[in-house]
Amino acid sequence: MVDVAVIGVGMIEWGELWQKSLRDIFVEAALKAIDDAGVDRVDSMYVGCMSSGLFVGQEHLGGVMADYLGVVPIPSTRVESACASGGVAFRQGLMEVASGMSEIVLVGGVEKMTDVDGGGATYALATAADQEYEVYNGVTFPGLYAMMARAHMDKYGTTRDQLAQVSVKNHENGSKNPYAQYKMKLTVDQVKNAVMVADPLTILDCSPITDGAAAVVICPVEMARKMGKQPIVRVAGSGQASDTIALHQRKDITYLSATEVAAKKAYEMAGVGPSDIDLVEVHDCFTIAEICAIEALGLVEKGKGGPATAKGETALDGRIPVNTSGGLKSKGHPVGATGVAQIVEVTEQLRGESGPRQVKGAKRGLAQNMGGTCASAAVHILEVA
Amino acid sequence: MVDVAVIGVGMIEWGELWQKSLRDIFVEAALKAIDDAGVDRVDSMYVGCMSSGLFVGQEHLGGVMADYLGVVPIPSTRVESACASGGVAFRQGLMEVASGMSEIVLVGGVEKMTDVDGGGATYALATAADQEYEVYNGVTFPGLYAMMARAHMDKYGTTRDQLAQVSVKNHENGSKNPYAQYKMKLTVDQVKNAVMVADPLTILDCSPITDGAAAVVICPVEMARKMGKQPIVRVAGSGQASDTIALHQRKDITYLSATEVAAKKAYEMAGVGPSDIDLVEVHDCFTIAEICAIEALGLVEKGKGGPATAKGETALDGRIPVNTSGGLKSKGHPVGATGVAQIVEVTEQLRGESGPRQVKGAKRGLAQNMGGTCASAAVHILEVA
Repeated sequence: MVDVAVIGVGMIEWGELWQKSLRDIFVEAALKAIDDAGVDRVDSMYVGCMSSGLFVGQEHLGGVMADYLGVVPIPSTRVESACASGGVAFRQGLMEVASGMSEIVLVGGVEKMTDVDGGGATYALATAADQEYEVYNGVTFPGLYAMMARAHMDKYGTTRDQLAQVSVKNHENGSKNPYAQYKMKLTVDQVKNAVMVADPLTILDCSPITDGAAAVVICPVEMARKMGKQPIVRVAGSGQASDTIALHQRKDITYLSATEVAAKKAYEMAGVGPSDIDLVEVHDCFTIAEICAIEALGLVEKGKGGPATAKGETALDGRIPVNTSGGLKSKGHPVGATGVAQIVEVTEQLRGESGPRQVKGAKRGLAQNMGGTCASAAVHILEVA
Repeated sequence: MVDVAVIGVGMIEWGELWQKSLRDIFVEAALKAIDDAGVDRVDSMYVGCMSSGLFVGQEHLGGVMADYLGVVPIPSTRVESACASGGVAFRQGLMEVASGMSEIVLVGGVEKMTDVDGGGATYALATAADQEYEVYNGVTFPGLYAMMARAHMDKYGTTRDQLAQVSVKNHENGSKNPYAQYKMKLTVDQVKNAVMVADPLTILDCSPITDGAAAVVICPVEMARKMGKQPIVRVAGSGQASDTIALHQRKDITYLSATEVAAKKAYEMAGVGPSDIDLVEVHDCFTIAEICAIEALGLVEKGKGGPATAKGETALDGRIPVNTSGGLKSKGHPVGATGVAQIVEVTEQLRGESGPRQVKGAKRGLAQNMGGTCASAAVHILEVA
């Protein structure tokens, strides 16, 4: 298997980008990644996107984006895995380079979510759940994650304040990220007293609706060395896994089994464990999701995600910084772009380019991206080679 | 790069399957492929599907299908490239095995198109074209392919009868395929005198709206040998390419440049040329598409696709049999499944299992799958190793 490096990253400021189209924002991020990589060709490309058909009436994004990026006739493939579309697209790019089929591959993620008529975005997002057994009965994602939160509180004694602290921490980090959609800082009281969405989750426990894109360029490590890249950011581990699509089918709804399985694969491939990781980007679509994710990744003991967060263990200066980018909560969550943006953040941290949110001496980082209530998960470990 | 073999195929009878759901038909085809392969595990899987979000309100098909197939927690990824989703998904599976990341990989394709409210299917299909510059102005695929047909007639003298002959030949072949949606034979007069859709194309020049699924299982050639598979059907070549998403951006709208580029890659990889191919499955979404495809694949001279068809060169007993399965026209065109079903047909032909439509002594076959007006194309060459 060919060893793979990330040699270019591209991000744009996320938000309600009403003056730009789906293709505009993808191309903007992609060109920044290509420019950052300093390459004069791309051999193949991927577009991670969940539901451009429902959001903006455009499928066939491989063709669309290759055309508007000006790289026709290269192969261009759209990958969908709900909110894990970006992470899964990155893994497909990784395997293409690893197989030797291509050398320089662009992986971008994109979603345009704010141009949809009233109710449309919630409907589109709900297509990531089980339409026949969940959505048909009236539940959408805030309700599903609220049930996970309640179960976690009942089983482990996780408190409302601990949930809120996830949001407070991520907004603290996001306030230092120029690309973040919501850069304001929050207090625990603000989170707790915000508009209730699905008890116990208020609107400040929920990641927002966002327009955004992100992109990376990868190539063989050997080629990156010849190009003189310094440092070499190597993809050390990759894992992907699935779980039941419906939440009610699981033995334990507080546990993200697909994340655990994917992480185990990634740790094995990288030859490391949770204690060897310097920083982590996790999929905090809701505050409870971050708590469940750090437990499934083995960064804290099962059931201890809440207290660890409250103690500051996951803060920027804590034992294991989580979501230094601001996470989905503050940075925003354009679903197809999120997994790729996580790779961008980890890469920039390993290069020492994260400015006020830099984790000092970071040599190895992990990104965890999931779809639905974690019916799909992708975990990647990047390290300075 | 690990050498890859197709060791299992699964098809179901296509049609208006109103008593079965999207997940039902996918699982049915997948189980047949797994059974045919005789494997007791699958390491990873792919779902080729164009627009389940718009057709049935369900995205996240990787998670859904892994769950309903009972293979959780393996990685499961949905790939979309409009009507080329199946061929592109097959290529992703191929690269996963080729990279060494997984050994036994299932690739399925599926689309459920008949349960949509009036107008919905045409709207969903049109999202494969350029929404901003084509669909917004009122053109859908029959109109786009009609323009290609008119241009081909003007430039090369292709006749109405030659177009009709594509449909007649494919229905002749499809009448011998138990899985085909429309098994009736047709005459040139019937095709010409059918209801006009977009001049010169009548409804019998157009592939139908179909519910269907197909699946294959692949693994390393070495593993297939150890399992005692006979014959070994090896994936000798793979190519994928893109073109402008909008038809009006092309220099020559009669030429499928993405197909030509993808085919060139596949021929090179396989070390063969057009004259070494014993049978071909091409993407005849409209009769003109088959004529353009056989030209782009180099099977006939540019502009000679019509006369070659009329002379019987592409018939079952002709110089180069094209669409022995009945093609999209007769077999049906559940868009995400089509590319995978092409691989099923070529594999069965190479195994000598195609009964009344068997091409005698077939040792090497090619499958060409395309999205939109060929803004994306995937070409695969399979051979008896």
